[in-house]
Amino acid sequence: MNTADLIASCQQDWNDYTRHRFLIELGNGTLPKEVFQHYLEQDYLFLIQFSRAYALAVYKSDNFAEMRKPLEALHGLISHETRLHVEYCEQWGLTEQDMMNIPEATGTVAYTRLVLDAGQSGSLTDLYAALAPCSIGYGHIGRWLANSPNTVWEGNPYREWIETYNGEEYQAGVQASQEQLDELLAEIPDDSRSAARIKKIFRSATCMEVAFWEQGYEALAS
Amino acid sequence: MNTADLIASCQQDWNDYTRHRFLIELGNGTLPKEVFQHYLEQDYLFLIQFSRAYALAVYKSDNFAEMRKPLEALHGLISHETRLHVEYCEQWGLTEQDMMNIPEATGTVAYTRLVLDAGQSGSLTDLYAALAPCSIGYGHIGRWLANSPNTVWEGNPYREWIETYNGEEYQAGVQASQEQLDELLAEIPDDSRSAARIKKIFRSATCMEVAFWEQGYEALAS
Amino acid sequence: MNTADLIASCQQDWNDYTRHRFLIELGNGTLPKEVFQHYLEQDYLFLIQFSRAYALAVYKSDNFAEMRKPLEALHGLISHETRLHVEYCEQWGLTEQDMMNIPEATGTVAYTRLVLDAGQSGSLTDLYAALAPCSIGYGHIGRWLANSPNTVWEGNPYREWIETYNGEEYQAGVQASQEQLDELLAEIPDDSRSAARIKKIFRSATCMEVAFWEQGYEALAS
Amino acid sequence: MNTADLIASCQQDWNDYTRHRFLIELGNGTLPKEVFQHYLEQDYLFLIQFSRAYALAVYKSDNFAEMRKPLEALHGLISHETRLHVEYCEQWGLTEQDMMNIPEATGTVAYTRLVLDAGQSGSLTDLYAALAPCSIGYGHIGRWLANSPNTVWEGNPYREWIETYNGEEYQAGVQASQEQLDELLAEIPDDSRSAARIKKIFRSATCMEVAFWEQGYEALAS
Repeated sequence: MNTADLIASCQQDWNDYTRHRFLIELGNGTLPKEVFQHYLEQDYLFLIQFSRAYALAVYKSDNFAEMRKPLEALHGLISHETRLHVEYCEQWGLTEQDMMNIPEATGTVAYTRLVLDAGQSGSLTDLYAALAPCSIGYGHIGRWLANSPNTVWEGNPYREWIETYNGEEYQAGVQASQEQLDELLAEIPDDSRSAARIKKIFRSATCMEVAFWEQGYEALAS
Repeated sequence: MNTADLIASCQQDWNDYTRHRFLIELGNGTLPKEVFQHYLEQDYLFLIQFSRAYALAVYKSDNFAEMRKPLEALHGLISHETRLHVEYCEQWGLTEQDMMNIPEATGTVAYTRLVLDAGQSGSLTDLYAALAPCSIGYGHIGRWLANSPNTVWEGNPYREWIETYNGEEYQAGVQASQEQLDELLAEIPDDSRSAARIKKIFRSATCMEVAFWEQGYEALAS
Repeated sequence: MNTADLIASCQQDWNDYTRHRFLIELGNGTLPKEVFQHYLEQDYLFLIQFSRAYALAVYKSDNFAEMRKPLEALHGLISHETRLHVEYCEQWGLTEQDMMNIPEATGTVAYTRLVLDAGQSGSLTDLYAALAPCSIGYGHIGRWLANSPNTVWEGNPYREWIETYNGEEYQAGVQASQEQLDELLAEIPDDSRSAARIKKIFRSATCMEVAFWEQGYEALAS
Repeated sequence: MNTADLIASCQQDWNDYTRHRFLIELGNGTLPKEVFQHYLEQDYLFLIQFSRAYALAVYKSDNFAEMRKPLEALHGLISHETRLHVEYCEQWGLTEQDMMNIPEATGTVAYTRLVLDAGQSGSLTDLYAALAPCSIGYGHIGRWLANSPNTVWEGNPYREWIETYNGEEYQAGVQASQEQLDELLAEIPDDSRSAARIKKIFRSATCMEVAFWEQGYEALAS
């Protein structure tokens, strides 16, 4: 089994996630600012839980060599990605303290805790499969948006977002994540119960990503 | 600190949960059947995760005496409550196999995994606080509905639901859960960081219960 | 891979464990009573942690069908095996309260926490592999002692112990445990990293069982 | 409650640990080299598990500020302390690959898995209390040896060990660990069940440290 098989096993859900109207509107610059701001706020809370998930991957490692990959990701998340995120949010008028006080929305709780629970209750492979819709999906999304003829670059307030996730550094990280997951999945026999479990986790995580995109619109509507 | 303090610390969210229109409509018999059926399906998936949470409480116990309470709850959930639930669902045309194949909705994932993560990452008290909106809240709801002048008994298709949660057996379990939580909370100093953490978990869990009620309506609308 | 492969992968350690002088002396009735009493005390503390491990297996299950097996084992441990153990200990002058106050010896901590950590950090298969030296090994030991020409039956103060672990009920439980582990192991490719990890866990757990037998003699010597 | 109370609650065990003959002989240079070498090998395996414990502390944190402390410790352990350890071991003729292949001894398993299990099953405070005999104890030991009139400096093959653990950098880390633990313990009421649990964990961890010192002698004797 490999990452492509995971995606193929829930292709419709994967498309719903990676071609969501949030992304289409982000690409052509028509995404309502309130929706994006809601996303930014929740993404900060998301990053806290994602960092915890990478810490869990370190905990679930057997030796120093295995620990280094998730530790690097964790270090990147806490020192680098979060700092960038906080700076970026400041441009949108959000301070870190503001974001810490915002309650987590349902979709944020759903995706992050699903990942953490899959990781605690299963193997390291289960954990990485649950992380994959984010750790790999954002790379697919960034590349797709960057190459889409519908993407508007001039005057698009979300241009920086697209450039970040299509950027070389981010894409290299995605590549590394995918190789690591493929290496772990290569050990899982195709028709095993482990394979079925991993597919179920991956699909459920993908659906929770859809809920994550939706929640900004719901907040706007209510 | 005690359970009443937890409720008071997020009274508005608690009211949103325990006085939700799902319950008002259930009480007067006007709840759309599709909404109720969606709830029943998700509640089955919920009970699986809830059983896992009680197993986690057994794991987090220090001796046999401590284990007995959550083990009894676990046993009740698996042997008794689930069987009742399955029988009840059959009246609504849902078989157990059907329910096992339904994907978990976002609100179901959000509440259940929040509980499991609070339990894994925190103390036994954190775990019971996360369970409380369900383990204690359903008792409050059952009693409130049973005593409400707006509740319709004659011809109400949801009468059995109200009677179950207002029933002596269920109320005795709620009483026991609340006493146990109160005993654990009595040790937590009011202004401590532990108290703040527990309140945050309880509030977040309460909000996820609201999302759980909502999701039947959302499914109906979509 | 199957259970026999696990044993073969650390045959020397397995022999050290299942043919330990503690067992030989128990079989011919020459085991010093102080050593046996120390074992009984530690075995009580061991059963607490073992119950926690089965609770962890319930937590790590995906549905009710999967939960039932470890839940049954847990129920048996808490309601039945522990009660028998407590009654048996009383014959040796040890009350349950006495045993609860005895500190856990190093070998007890080592084996039990290794199991719990293997279970938390790995898959359900890892957990069952860590439990196997006990859950399956005691069956092998009981049968071996019962069939050994060196076993003394007449006047052997440890006869009941041998009869328990060679008894039909216990052997049926062992059989069920082994079938379940074999089913899980059948999915693990022979030369995979998962296989290597599982073998390492199984071997380490087997070595900790040796330490568990040793500790009564060490306590006697000190 | 504070760290001093924890130590006072098991003063005899604490003395057995911090004044162990391993340390007295290390201080006066008479410790058999084989015993020290065994200790070095096991200490490498110990550091792997200790790193996992700090990763667990990151996982159990609620926000980025809380994560930074254990993440720094984890980073220090993996990048710095382990490198030093590996270099130091090379002076004693041990390569990293050698050490990775050595089985964990019982005392190593016992202490490390006790810490990990206390951390998984309890609160962050429980985890730090389980780590304290090491994270704080080694500082006490380094300082005591450095100030002891019995310590031999000239020609002592273990001088570097003493200097490391009495060194400013190490002592600053110990100071920070103790302050953090004191801050967490300050919230725990003296006569609470949480206090009793934490004392039990601390005492048990201290006893496992004694077993850790012992095991080099046992290996020498066998």
